[in-house]
Amino acid sequence: MAFRFFPKTFNFFDLFEKQVSHAVDAACFFKEVVSRGYVSEEALSRMAAIEHQGDEVAHAIMDQLNKTFITPFDREDIYALAKQLDDVIDMINNILSRLRIYNITTVDKNLVEFTVVIEQSVRAVARAVGGLRNIKNVQVVFDACVEINRLENVGDSMRDRVLSELFANSQDPIAVIKWKDIYQDAETVLDVCEDVSHVVDSIMVKQA
Amino acid sequence: MAFRFFPKTFNFFDLFEKQVSHAVDAACFFKEVVSRGYVSEEALSRMAAIEHQGDEVAHAIMDQLNKTFITPFDREDIYALAKQLDDVIDMINNILSRLRIYNITTVDKNLVEFTVVIEQSVRAVARAVGGLRNIKNVQVVFDACVEINRLENVGDSMRDRVLSELFANSQDPIAVIKWKDIYQDAETVLDVCEDVSHVVDSIMVKQA
Amino acid sequence: MAFRFFPKTFNFFDLFEKQVSHAVDAACFFKEVVSRGYVSEEALSRMAAIEHQGDEVAHAIMDQLNKTFITPFDREDIYALAKQLDDVIDMINNILSRLRIYNITTVDKNLVEFTVVIEQSVRAVARAVGGLRNIKNVQVVFDACVEINRLENVGDSMRDRVLSELFANSQDPIAVIKWKDIYQDAETVLDVCEDVSHVVDSIMVKQA
Repeated sequence: MAFRFFPKTFNFFDLFEKQVSHAVDAACFFKEVVSRGYVSEEALSRMAAIEHQGDEVAHAIMDQLNKTFITPFDREDIYALAKQLDDVIDMINNILSRLRIYNITTVDKNLVEFTVVIEQSVRAVARAVGGLRNIKNVQVVFDACVEINRLENVGDSMRDRVLSELFANSQDPIAVIKWKDIYQDAETVLDVCEDVSHVVDSIMVKQA
Repeated sequence: MAFRFFPKTFNFFDLFEKQVSHAVDAACFFKEVVSRGYVSEEALSRMAAIEHQGDEVAHAIMDQLNKTFITPFDREDIYALAKQLDDVIDMINNILSRLRIYNITTVDKNLVEFTVVIEQSVRAVARAVGGLRNIKNVQVVFDACVEINRLENVGDSMRDRVLSELFANSQDPIAVIKWKDIYQDAETVLDVCEDVSHVVDSIMVKQA
Repeated sequence: MAFRFFPKTFNFFDLFEKQVSHAVDAACFFKEVVSRGYVSEEALSRMAAIEHQGDEVAHAIMDQLNKTFITPFDREDIYALAKQLDDVIDMINNILSRLRIYNITTVDKNLVEFTVVIEQSVRAVARAVGGLRNIKNVQVVFDACVEINRLENVGDSMRDRVLSELFANSQDPIAVIKWKDIYQDAETVLDVCEDVSHVVDSIMVKQA
C-alpha cells in the first residue's frame, strides 16, 4: 500500500474546486436576476441556498485544515483562499439582498454591465483555482490572474464613471444613496476576486 | 518549586476575562443610554472610559504575547481574540459617538431591539471566552458559540427589515443617511461577536 | 569575503524607505491640490503615477519576501508594513478620485485642515520606518509612533466636529453624502498611519 500524504478523503483541491463552482453559480444567477430587473422572494432563496452550499464547503476546508498536518500548500494560504472565495459568494448574495431591501424594480444598464464583468472575473477565478492542482498549469493560472487583475481595473473605471453620472444627473438623494451602495458593492466583488488572484499567484510562486 | 509554563503574572485567561468584562460593561451601558434616547456628554465620557480600560487590557495582552515564548494556545489566535474583543468595544463606542454626532434625541424602538440582542451576544461571548480556561468546559463554549451565531442571524434579519422600512417610509434623506449608518453599525457589532466565536471555536477544536 | 545575511540587492530597509517616500509625495501633493480646490485631470494622473510607483515598490518587497529565507524582522511584519504603506498611498489617491467624481470645485477649509494633519502623520511614519534600520534609533522611532498616535486622535476629533457641523447646518442631502464620505476617508488615512505605527512599534519591541 502506497503512503499518501494527502488521503483522498482530505482533498483540498476537490474542495476548492467545489467552492469556486458555487461562486460561479452565484455570479451567473446574479447576472440573470439583474437582467430581469426584479428580485423575487424565490430568487433571494435560491441565492441564499447557493451561499449556504458555499459556506458548507468553506467549513469543510477549515475542518480539514485543523485535522491535517501536511498540507499541499501553506496553511495560511489555504485559510485565505477559503475565506476569500466565501467572501465572493457573500458579497454577491449581499447585493441581491440590497436590491430587494432598496426595492429596486427596474433593469439598470450599469448594473447589468457590472454583472457581466463579475461573471467573467469569477470564471477566471475558477480557472486559477482549478489550475492549482498541478504545477504544470502555471501558465493557465498566471493568465487567469492577469485577467482577474484586468477586470478589476475595468470595474474601477466603471464605478468611477457611473458614480460621476449618478451625482451629476440625479436630483433624488434617496436614489443616490441606494445606487452608490449598489455600485460600490459590485466593484468590491471584483476587488475580492483580485485578492484571490494574489493568493493564488503567491502559492504558485512559492511552489515554482 | 514547581516549574510553571504560564507564570501567574502572565495569565492570558485572566486578561481575556477582564477584557470581555469591559465588553459586557459597554454593551449594558449602551442599552441603558439608547433606552433613554439621548446621549449626554457624561454618557460619552463614561463609554470612552470603558473603551480606554478595554484598550489597556488589549495592550497588556499584546505585551505579554511579545514576551512569552510558550502560550496556552496559538499566538495568532491570542492576537485575533484580543483584537476582536477590542473591536467589539470600539464599535459600541462608535455607535454612541455617532448618535451624538447625528444629534439623535429620541428613543428608536428598532435600535432598542438591537441593543438587547447585542447585550445577549456579548454575554455569550463572555461565556465562550471564560470557558477557554479549561478543556472540560467544551460544551459550555460550544453552546455559547452556537448562541452567538444564532444572534448574528437574528441581527441580519433585523437589519434587513428595519432598512426596508426606512427606505419604504422615510421622505427625509438626511434621516435615511443617519439611520442607515446606525443600524449598519449595530449589526456589525454582532458580526464581530461572531468572529470571536469562530476564533474560540477553532481554539477548542485544536485542543480537543 | 564576508558572509552576508542580507545581501545588498535584497535590502528591505532601502525598499521601505523608498515606499514611504512615495507616501510622503502623495500626502504633499494631496495637500497642494486640496488647497487649490479643484482636481484637474493632470492632478489625477500625477497622483496615479505616485500610486503606481508605490505599488511597484510594494511588489518588489513581496517578491523579495518570497525569495529570502532570513529576513531582518518577522516575515508577517514585513508583509503588514508593505501592505499598510501601500494602503496609505491608495487611500490618499482614492480621496483625490472621489473629489473629482463628486465634482468638488471649491476649497473646503475642513479638508485643508485634514491634509495638513495627514502630511504631518505621513512624515512621522517616514521617520518611524526610516529608524527601523538601526536599533540605536529606538527613541526616534518611539517618538514618531507617539506623534502618529497623537495625530490620529486629532483626526478623530476633527472628523467628529466637522460631521456634527455638516449634519447640523446642511440642508442639501447630496452635499451631506459627498462630504461625509470625504471626511471619513481623510480620517481613515490617519487610522492606517496608526496601523503602521503599531507594526513598527512591535518590530522594535521584539528586537529590543
